[in-house]
Amino acid sequence: MIAKKCGKQSVKFSTPVKIISTYSIVGQKEGNGNFKDYFDYILKDDKFGEDTFEHAERKLIEHAIIHGIERAHLNIQDIDLMLAGDLLNQITSSSFTARKLNATFVGLYGACSTMAESLAVGACMVDGGFFKNVVCATGSHFSSAERQYRFPLELGNQRPPTSQWTVTGAGCAILSADGPNDCNKIYSATFGKVVDYGVTDVNNMGAAMAPAACSTLIAHFEDMHTKPEDYDLILTGDLGKLGSELLIDLMEHNGYKLGRNYSDCGQMMYNDNQKTFQGGSGAGCSASVLNSYVMRKLSEGSIKRVLFLATGALLSSTSAQQGDSIPGICHAVEIRRE
Amino acid sequence: MIAKKCGKQSVKFSTPVKIISTYSIVGQKEGNGNFKDYFDYILKDDKFGEDTFEHAERKLIEHAIIHGIERAHLNIQDIDLMLAGDLLNQITSSSFTARKLNATFVGLYGACSTMAESLAVGACMVDGGFFKNVVCATGSHFSSAERQYRFPLELGNQRPPTSQWTVTGAGCAILSADGPNDCNKIYSATFGKVVDYGVTDVNNMGAAMAPAACSTLIAHFEDMHTKPEDYDLILTGDLGKLGSELLIDLMEHNGYKLGRNYSDCGQMMYNDNQKTFQGGSGAGCSASVLNSYVMRKLSEGSIKRVLFLATGALLSSTSAQQGDSIPGICHAVEIRRE
Repeated sequence: MIAKKCGKQSVKFSTPVKIISTYSIVGQKEGNGNFKDYFDYILKDDKFGEDTFEHAERKLIEHAIIHGIERAHLNIQDIDLMLAGDLLNQITSSSFTARKLNATFVGLYGACSTMAESLAVGACMVDGGFFKNVVCATGSHFSSAERQYRFPLELGNQRPPTSQWTVTGAGCAILSADGPNDCNKIYSATFGKVVDYGVTDVNNMGAAMAPAACSTLIAHFEDMHTKPEDYDLILTGDLGKLGSELLIDLMEHNGYKLGRNYSDCGQMMYNDNQKTFQGGSGAGCSASVLNSYVMRKLSEGSIKRVLFLATGALLSSTSAQQGDSIPGICHAVEIRRE
Repeated sequence: MIAKKCGKQSVKFSTPVKIISTYSIVGQKEGNGNFKDYFDYILKDDKFGEDTFEHAERKLIEHAIIHGIERAHLNIQDIDLMLAGDLLNQITSSSFTARKLNATFVGLYGACSTMAESLAVGACMVDGGFFKNVVCATGSHFSSAERQYRFPLELGNQRPPTSQWTVTGAGCAILSADGPNDCNKIYSATFGKVVDYGVTDVNNMGAAMAPAACSTLIAHFEDMHTKPEDYDLILTGDLGKLGSELLIDLMEHNGYKLGRNYSDCGQMMYNDNQKTFQGGSGAGCSASVLNSYVMRKLSEGSIKRVLFLATGALLSSTSAQQGDSIPGICHAVEIRRE
């Protein structure tokens, strides 16, 4: 039996897809935040021994994948497909990692939604019988993102109160058609539409992405015939404090009440003394939280059903300079432990 | 029965995936080239009525997709998934098109390999039963690519003899689980590895990408137990004249003789009077040739079995400035008419 498309945007897998291993790595600031006891590796040096921030970002993703593969008791040669992307122009962090690993590679671009995008596509690849062991990964680096999207750090620009702090970190999950039965599994995925409410402030990503999260969340509930209370945890990627409040409002306007089981990786990442304003963002934000805290909570059995929604802002500095508003996207995967 | 992975990098579809419609659009220069009688639409104005080259590129992809959908006698609402990417930073041409079409969207990044990447992933999505009607598309624009990767045209820089001319153009193919039986179909796909022979000259993309084409071509032959003579046409994406000669050499070193059935979209795109040095490049190069000339030749029955390999150079201007060499990738799809 093959998987069937459910409703408009969702896929329910015929055999839930096994997540046989995960790994997370973050920078120092993240390592001092709320999830410090869950991350697998915390950098001592934000450049990770490299000469540039871009090379450091690349090494973060490499490290996460290599250790994820090790933890799955596999060799790099056992990996059939690598699905990854990142925020840097032309996703060089991911492509150069694929070069190093000599991996069969499908490059993705979903901005900060990449962790969910890669898991959703990866689960299709495994469930469809196309590939057996699939690496899904992404990451980001505060300093390379600031330089590319806003200003080089050397300029010392002030950050506005709506801004979020791009997480220095990476996460990796390995999906497999094999492996033990008692592991976290992907039951369904909802692919997102591009949604744009006309936000043009590049320092307010939460507002730009919240409508996309709302769209995908509603699509998921409708397609899967579920409601918010059915999940132990509904977790968005990096809407931050303001963005996640906007999402709660938007959902309420659409007749869905998000309760105490709703949270956001960006909002939770840092503690209040860390002065990040709205919290964390970046592809590494949801990737590092999902592949540490969330996976551990599922493995321990303290939660059993998670809806993970990673959100992405699909702008470029050129599109912003040319006056375009900021489109958002959000992909979702449902992960369960039974 | 579900599809099975063949060999290391290839997938053979359980039911060949139908290509129910294709569409191509190109700029004036391309419209004066060797395929002028095959393209569906030739621009009269390279800006396509838009204010910037980037907006023109976006409109090219939009136009190709909208007309591809029309030609398939579908409505935009009938499209279940859009797979696209492009060369611009953060693939804004594709994302903003997905916004306009309100399409469920998976963003890809494979540089100039995107047409084959989207077809390969799309065929998996259809064959796996996940989505019924899938749009695969990409495009590029000479002027936006020059501005982003090299120099703005206004500077009047000279082009070196190894350079290629980024094609202004876009192509779209619609895959479906439904539709008439007598159409061109995707039989198999080979996903590429990232290959890098250390080329650092950003004006010699053909040399940077030829090793990736060689790698994927060999993987395809080995995985599918075929040889060059089994295909009526083996067509690479945009290696250009120099790059395709390098590929012929590389293949010969590996024991494969590419004969008269081998050609390259970039090499064929322009005529000798058009002064493009090595020929065409860009994601729109192979996309526009595949979705016009190649599909028509298949439909007419003058060729029956095509191996389409689109090649991509995975550099960014930052990676080039930081001294990194240029990794290449190549994805392949086998298209047949019976």
